[in-house]
Amino acid sequence: MSMAVLELYPNAGLGVGPVIENGFYQDYDLPEPLSEDMLPKIEARMKEIVKEKIAFVQSNSSVEEALAFYKNDVYKTELIEELAKKGEKEISFYDSGSFHNMCEGPHVENSNKIRYDSFKLMSVAGAYWRGDEKNKMLTRIYGVAFADKKALKEHLHLLEEAKKRDHRKIGKEQELFFIDETVGKGLAMWLPNGTIIREQIEQFAKDTESAAGYVRVVTPHIAKEELFLRSGHLPYYKDDMYPAMEMDDGTYYLRAMNCPHHHQIFLHGPKSYKDMPMRIAEYGMVYRNELSGTLAGLLRVRGLAMNDSHIYCKKDQIKDEFKAVLEMTMMYFKVFGFDTYWFRLSKWDPAHTDKYIDQPENWAHSEQIIREVLVEMDVPFVEVEDEAAFYGPKVDVQFTSVLGREESMSTIQLDFLAKERFGFEYTDDSGEKNNEVFVIHRAPLSVHERFLAFLTEHYAGYWPVWLAPVQVSILPVSTDKHVDGAKELAAELRAAGMRVSVDSADETVGKKIRAAAQAKVPYVLVVGEKELSGEDFTVRVRRQEEQLALSKADFVQRVAEDIAQKRVW
Amino acid sequence: MSMAVLELYPNAGLGVGPVIENGFYQDYDLPEPLSEDMLPKIEARMKEIVKEKIAFVQSNSSVEEALAFYKNDVYKTELIEELAKKGEKEISFYDSGSFHNMCEGPHVENSNKIRYDSFKLMSVAGAYWRGDEKNKMLTRIYGVAFADKKALKEHLHLLEEAKKRDHRKIGKEQELFFIDETVGKGLAMWLPNGTIIREQIEQFAKDTESAAGYVRVVTPHIAKEELFLRSGHLPYYKDDMYPAMEMDDGTYYLRAMNCPHHHQIFLHGPKSYKDMPMRIAEYGMVYRNELSGTLAGLLRVRGLAMNDSHIYCKKDQIKDEFKAVLEMTMMYFKVFGFDTYWFRLSKWDPAHTDKYIDQPENWAHSEQIIREVLVEMDVPFVEVEDEAAFYGPKVDVQFTSVLGREESMSTIQLDFLAKERFGFEYTDDSGEKNNEVFVIHRAPLSVHERFLAFLTEHYAGYWPVWLAPVQVSILPVSTDKHVDGAKELAAELRAAGMRVSVDSADETVGKKIRAAAQAKVPYVLVVGEKELSGEDFTVRVRRQEEQLALSKADFVQRVAEDIAQKRVW
Repeated sequence: MSMAVLELYPNAGLGVGPVIENGFYQDYDLPEPLSEDMLPKIEARMKEIVKEKIAFVQSNSSVEEALAFYKNDVYKTELIEELAKKGEKEISFYDSGSFHNMCEGPHVENSNKIRYDSFKLMSVAGAYWRGDEKNKMLTRIYGVAFADKKALKEHLHLLEEAKKRDHRKIGKEQELFFIDETVGKGLAMWLPNGTIIREQIEQFAKDTESAAGYVRVVTPHIAKEELFLRSGHLPYYKDDMYPAMEMDDGTYYLRAMNCPHHHQIFLHGPKSYKDMPMRIAEYGMVYRNELSGTLAGLLRVRGLAMNDSHIYCKKDQIKDEFKAVLEMTMMYFKVFGFDTYWFRLSKWDPAHTDKYIDQPENWAHSEQIIREVLVEMDVPFVEVEDEAAFYGPKVDVQFTSVLGREESMSTIQLDFLAKERFGFEYTDDSGEKNNEVFVIHRAPLSVHERFLAFLTEHYAGYWPVWLAPVQVSILPVSTDKHVDGAKELAAELRAAGMRVSVDSADETVGKKIRAAAQAKVPYVLVVGEKELSGEDFTVRVRRQEEQLALSKADFVQRVAEDIAQKRVW
Repeated sequence: MSMAVLELYPNAGLGVGPVIENGFYQDYDLPEPLSEDMLPKIEARMKEIVKEKIAFVQSNSSVEEALAFYKNDVYKTELIEELAKKGEKEISFYDSGSFHNMCEGPHVENSNKIRYDSFKLMSVAGAYWRGDEKNKMLTRIYGVAFADKKALKEHLHLLEEAKKRDHRKIGKEQELFFIDETVGKGLAMWLPNGTIIREQIEQFAKDTESAAGYVRVVTPHIAKEELFLRSGHLPYYKDDMYPAMEMDDGTYYLRAMNCPHHHQIFLHGPKSYKDMPMRIAEYGMVYRNELSGTLAGLLRVRGLAMNDSHIYCKKDQIKDEFKAVLEMTMMYFKVFGFDTYWFRLSKWDPAHTDKYIDQPENWAHSEQIIREVLVEMDVPFVEVEDEAAFYGPKVDVQFTSVLGREESMSTIQLDFLAKERFGFEYTDDSGEKNNEVFVIHRAPLSVHERFLAFLTEHYAGYWPVWLAPVQVSILPVSTDKHVDGAKELAAELRAAGMRVSVDSADETVGKKIRAAAQAKVPYVLVVGEKELSGEDFTVRVRRQEEQLALSKADFVQRVAEDIAQKRVW
């Protein structure tokens, strides 16, 4: 690239130019601003050079020779002087054709080893020399490079997809949420459309868990220091918590996790073996004090909502409960249409007794039964040593996202520590007190904010009908004649349980159809005289060429089934 | 009372003895502790004295005479010396028979004016002399007194009812909620049963408001100082807010009201006349820094949940919106079975321009249209001057509770100030910017905590079926033979949308029936061989002597109708 750039600007100064993930960049001091329009020209010349099979030849010069060579280049001079200060005697150069350049290497043997069709210049940006804003602003050219054309194509496709699927972009287009600087960083403000999706997911979780014998609670988002001292969040986790609030009866904190409150619910009133397992669920909110500079969209936030639950069970119930949680998690994933995931069992290391609670028998027992569960369920899993939580083993669910990123989505943790810290106990069937109460922490839908970002990316904004903020858009053919009829139809469909909008803007039908497609509305009905007088609808289905002719009853049934079966399409 | 007490304890010292609401108390320095068992004896003697028609005769003594008379009574001596210090020359005494007592009066003319059957001694408590814990603990006897027997009887009945209906008692019996000292004062912990009620009410509000064109949002419970400076909560309301939290990007507060967050939602994105009215609703949570000593059950709390909404409307929409809110409020009340309420229109006072925002035309206009709404709706209302909020007129809903207490339940406020503080504007139909955006604040279901306390008292714990945590209790006749069948039946009824419990305790059916009645479960099914083999159920209906013979289908239909129609019985 630099050979091509120097042909255009023979006096260009050369800043740094390292290899980065998937490619490279190089900084230049140019006599004029470089427009991105120039990149194809530079890239074309690079392809020619590459084909010329120019050898890269390494040589060494003394510091003095190097300084003399670069006497008109302040950047190289500064770099050489720094190397000299560090005690370097010799400076490495590479020659490629006419281009004699100070460079540490390594390089390919010759330019023909670079596939001319496997790299691409991507963008131009300003960059201060050495990253210091007091220095001159240089011109940085970014490029990507791969082993072959296919890999480049895949990368470019993923970049394109990532841009299209970015949850911030779609969140804005679809008016799902926003971050308001006046309210604060890392705190999602859920707009009406985003709230619809949130409430659908919440209701789905409530229904699922109610059927599985969970009970729901609502607890405050704050508590006194005493609770967090008991749980151990103070002092161990204090830096991740919001600062203390001094009240007339003690010190209060916003909670960073829901478990301490749930533990207090379990402690409320004596428990017998008949009460176990007790599965306490809450769509709870927690607050974590992340540095403001690290916050990004919904992926890194300070306010986290969670469909959280804690299961309090006897030792002989761990296996069934753990299995039920895993099965429920997989059921959720199936409904959302995820299939590229596997499990990761994180175990303790008996050699590191400082890192783990010292209950060897419970470790051995629980790791064995979790392994059994994973084997019985016949799911892909790996085991890793020395990765457990302090208080027990855990299973993480690992995902490959549609963009090829690996991420850890949900986690299921077993906890032998809470019973000691909180003094849990139950009366067993012989009337004896037993304090072997095991806690399973689980949030299969992850943190809502992250999950919503993941879902947005996964669906690229094409929400399944049950989640779509608007499920049916009705477009009256004539604003004069058909708006009232369209509104009556909307009311009828709403009464049948659908979320419907009517586009009564004074625009052409063509424009309204494009707007509805842009908004990714699943079903569009254009209604005029015929449709309003009872003839079949012509139904436009999102991302489908063919239009359907459906009676009103058939259309209602189709949408109702989409919703009831949570169909993903 | 003192005449009777002095007959028992001739040397008793007499502390203060004032008139209080519904009665009186008197403090005594007695030689031995007084048990409440003694009260009937004292009361009986009082009744005899009352019938003796003893005159109450006032006279004055000099300070010296009074001190001489009370030379053995440290309490009266202290009081007389205090009066003398204030410049009193004469001390008032009353004689009634042998009882010569320093007393300011007034008294009835003679004891026969007191109806012997219209008073009652209620309780004994310890009370420090002059309320100072460094002083001696005296014995305080409380009594109630009314104009006639009927009034006493009513009062005693209401006390009895208040005790039975107390939300703290029922909340504990029915496991609805608790206050946990480790979590903090004034912060309700909603147990599973209380959460069911809460979620039913929340869902009812969501459905109602969705049908009325409201949109829902979810916003964080905290925000930066900047937001509350803009809203005016800081500095005006600072003492009622939780203390500040310093973060790396500014100062944060827990919110004390939801409106500032909703205003930011309205501000998000340009608005046109087509977007108005915009009705933003949220089941929001706010936090208020009440003194810990003032907190009591759910009536006075620090964490308040609210089905809150803010309506942003044009000036010509105020009337329709205000009316719709009032109608919705009355619809809610009808569903909950409230009928003893009226409205109170609080207006500004143009003479007090310091107390009210200076927009005379808006005051005149809005007070007039709210009055019109109340007249058109033909509801009882009163108008009060100089009681409005700073920012606009309001309508409070005043209740007479089942215990005869008057309380203010919900409030609907019009706000002309927010548009100035937040700079609201919309584009009108001629394309011009207009900043006359009026805000209606409304929370017809009050604060959830208070509302739940009110509902508990109103229903005395006999929840309507749609709210009852357990709607149907199934009692197997034999623990050996019928538990499995009972569980299958429970699953069937659950699938039909009911909340069902099975009492499989090893107890007699009689005991289980009593327990279900105690728990105020609406429907109880005792199931044995016959019922499980398909014969009609014998349905026990809460608080109803007669049992019903219903087929399974008829029973399911009856309960489903109770739920769907939200019947109160």
